[in-house]
Amino acid sequence: MQKLRMVDLISKKKAGEAHSVEEIKFIVDGVKNNSIPDYQLSAWLMAVCLKGMTFDESAMLTEAMAKSGEIIDLSALGEYISDKHSTGGVGDKTTLILAPLLASVGVKVAKLSGRGLGYTGGTIDKLESIEGYNPSLELDKFIEQVNTIGAAVISQTAKLAPADSRLYALRDVTATVDSIPLIASSVLSKKIASGANVIVLDVKYGSGAFMKTPEQAEELSKTMVEIGKKLNRSITAVITSMDQPLGNGIGNAIEVQESIDTLKNIGPKDLTDLSVYLAAVMMVNTKNAKTIEEAEKALRESLANGKAYSKFIEMVEAQSAVKNFVLPTAEHLIEVKADSEGFITETDALTIAKASKILGAGRETKEDPIDYAVGVVLTKKIGDKVAKGDTIAVVHANSLELGKDAVKTCNKAFKYSSTPVEVPPIVHKVID
Amino acid sequence: MQKLRMVDLISKKKAGEAHSVEEIKFIVDGVKNNSIPDYQLSAWLMAVCLKGMTFDESAMLTEAMAKSGEIIDLSALGEYISDKHSTGGVGDKTTLILAPLLASVGVKVAKLSGRGLGYTGGTIDKLESIEGYNPSLELDKFIEQVNTIGAAVISQTAKLAPADSRLYALRDVTATVDSIPLIASSVLSKKIASGANVIVLDVKYGSGAFMKTPEQAEELSKTMVEIGKKLNRSITAVITSMDQPLGNGIGNAIEVQESIDTLKNIGPKDLTDLSVYLAAVMMVNTKNAKTIEEAEKALRESLANGKAYSKFIEMVEAQSAVKNFVLPTAEHLIEVKADSEGFITETDALTIAKASKILGAGRETKEDPIDYAVGVVLTKKIGDKVAKGDTIAVVHANSLELGKDAVKTCNKAFKYSSTPVEVPPIVHKVID
Repeated sequence: MQKLRMVDLISKKKAGEAHSVEEIKFIVDGVKNNSIPDYQLSAWLMAVCLKGMTFDESAMLTEAMAKSGEIIDLSALGEYISDKHSTGGVGDKTTLILAPLLASVGVKVAKLSGRGLGYTGGTIDKLESIEGYNPSLELDKFIEQVNTIGAAVISQTAKLAPADSRLYALRDVTATVDSIPLIASSVLSKKIASGANVIVLDVKYGSGAFMKTPEQAEELSKTMVEIGKKLNRSITAVITSMDQPLGNGIGNAIEVQESIDTLKNIGPKDLTDLSVYLAAVMMVNTKNAKTIEEAEKALRESLANGKAYSKFIEMVEAQSAVKNFVLPTAEHLIEVKADSEGFITETDALTIAKASKILGAGRETKEDPIDYAVGVVLTKKIGDKVAKGDTIAVVHANSLELGKDAVKTCNKAFKYSSTPVEVPPIVHKVID
Repeated sequence: MQKLRMVDLISKKKAGEAHSVEEIKFIVDGVKNNSIPDYQLSAWLMAVCLKGMTFDESAMLTEAMAKSGEIIDLSALGEYISDKHSTGGVGDKTTLILAPLLASVGVKVAKLSGRGLGYTGGTIDKLESIEGYNPSLELDKFIEQVNTIGAAVISQTAKLAPADSRLYALRDVTATVDSIPLIASSVLSKKIASGANVIVLDVKYGSGAFMKTPEQAEELSKTMVEIGKKLNRSITAVITSMDQPLGNGIGNAIEVQESIDTLKNIGPKDLTDLSVYLAAVMMVNTKNAKTIEEAEKALRESLANGKAYSKFIEMVEAQSAVKNFVLPTAEHLIEVKADSEGFITETDALTIAKASKILGAGRETKEDPIDYAVGVVLTKKIGDKVAKGDTIAVVHANSLELGKDAVKTCNKAFKYSSTPVEVPPIVHKVID
């Protein structure tokens, strides 16, 4: 066989041709062992963005990236290892709810999550707002906790899909992030390396999501479901709206508090409904329920009877040095007042996210600190009727100055109409 | 004004939008002072390849790259400073002929040429097969020689359009060479930096050229002519066929010898005709003749009466330490025999070029040595009738083994037909 040269593979992709499995492996090996320089990878990435990849290529890329590092063996947990992944949204704290909720009905959840670069932290950052929470369990301790308590959420290590990490860093600085095959293979390579074989994807679209339209979300979903079929993983994509934040709280400790409320069955309806639905899909796909209806019934019972909340406390205490934790709170609570009367037509997720970033809830670089206490709590959302001057949100700030900036930004997120507005459904479509 | 960020400019080009003059300057400055890393440039180059550039952008890029280094001031030579550039072909030695030919009719030629990476050397390599030839005159000496003798051919320095040099090196390894705006701006930035305002381009198409079809050559020509209009330079593009080599000789000393023959008016018809035509266009565009016919008459007279050849000797001796030079010759001359009878329909330029590369006439990297003596001399070309076993070419080799390889390769270049074949015209179209 002729020796492969990266320049020829770039040329091939530039011409819109599909790569062979040997070519994909050559590229991923070159990413992993640094034998392909950044400048060739970025030219190839741009060609992939503009010329696309077939489902076959996307599946081969996913598998090669998953195999570029350690693949976690969770088979000690049973036949079906389920995982949930969200493509990211504002106020998305479903992982914090799903893990104890599923454990409370007897479904084991071994979850590896990430930190965040962006407007708020990631799941691990949110959990770290709980004093003493340890997100770095060794693998055997992790499996042991899942087997005894039913759930554990720990931090992803750099050992998972290292080829994806290098490619992702390069995509970020070369305007090559928004490619369906690259996004799909990046997400799924990490999930597969995490040992999951039943994956439920929450694919969000809207102002606060990476995919701006339902069409884009649907294309990404189809690609990921197809990759799953080719790689023998059960993948279900739940396409959900992210035009307004999910739930009411945006921040880190604020989102932990709202997750606790939801687990106590007193959380916002949209967050409760979505969490129950995603958990139900996971139950059905892991053969722990026959139908979504049957699964939802069991899950809602667990929320109502306190079992889900107890499981959360059990899980956190197992991973924490501190009992009876208290969440950090911000120094200043500043009300955001409606500057118009009417029905709220828009609570723009991206704008609310920016307000939370202003307050210090997110970070720009890995090294930046996060202020766990700050954020925004919405008191009104799309469809609600307000009078001018009504409180529509509360800014939680540790600086009055930043707080005032965040209030101004929050105000821009709201739009009003004189006629009633229908509340959009949270789940748009399911693809599997 | 907002600070420009390269990642945003990549994104813009990826979306198919046109850059502003500030954006182009930002990119070229970043190329020149290394503030933009290779990986961002290569992503941008791929986006340019796949999304194109407007004539305006191409002109702005050309000008910015020309200004990235020294711009040679040749105004001491008069109002019109003419230059010729060929996009490159097999057996293309027209510069060696044009410089003394034009000087012999009173048109000054101050020519900066390059070395070659490829199947044979470039113009400077060819001239260096003349013992003692000095291609590195200081600027004042260069101008003085042009003013006294009428012609000088020297080597381009790295100081000309350094931004283009960095971009070109990157394009070469990222499969982003074949983009019309990138080729056009690369060629013209160097010509403009060389001080020329009247530029005649020999744009070649065919197997031995970079552009494979007349359509591609025409697109490149139109782009370069448009750039010329926008930058106030007279540019004429002469589109010529490069399906078979130009003239009969391919090599370095071999091409110098054929240039001498042509200047003595005993050269091959295609090479003579093209050289006279290109020189005539340069005479007309520099107001040294009113019509092509008038110019061609003067030029052909100069070939016939020995003035053109004398000027060549004068030019070479002015730049050489050695008088009465002798060209190096190869140890072995091996005949290539027709393996069929009939009319020759093809003398594939690329295949002949490969044979000359096998012999050592070209180089892979800047550091590789060139064997000046070796190459191929065609004795039959398209349209000629041959019997099986007739000599169709002679391989000039310094190694019998390589010589035999080259003979085999040469044989593959020829195709035959039982019916007569029309000889294709050398000039396909002129665009100005």
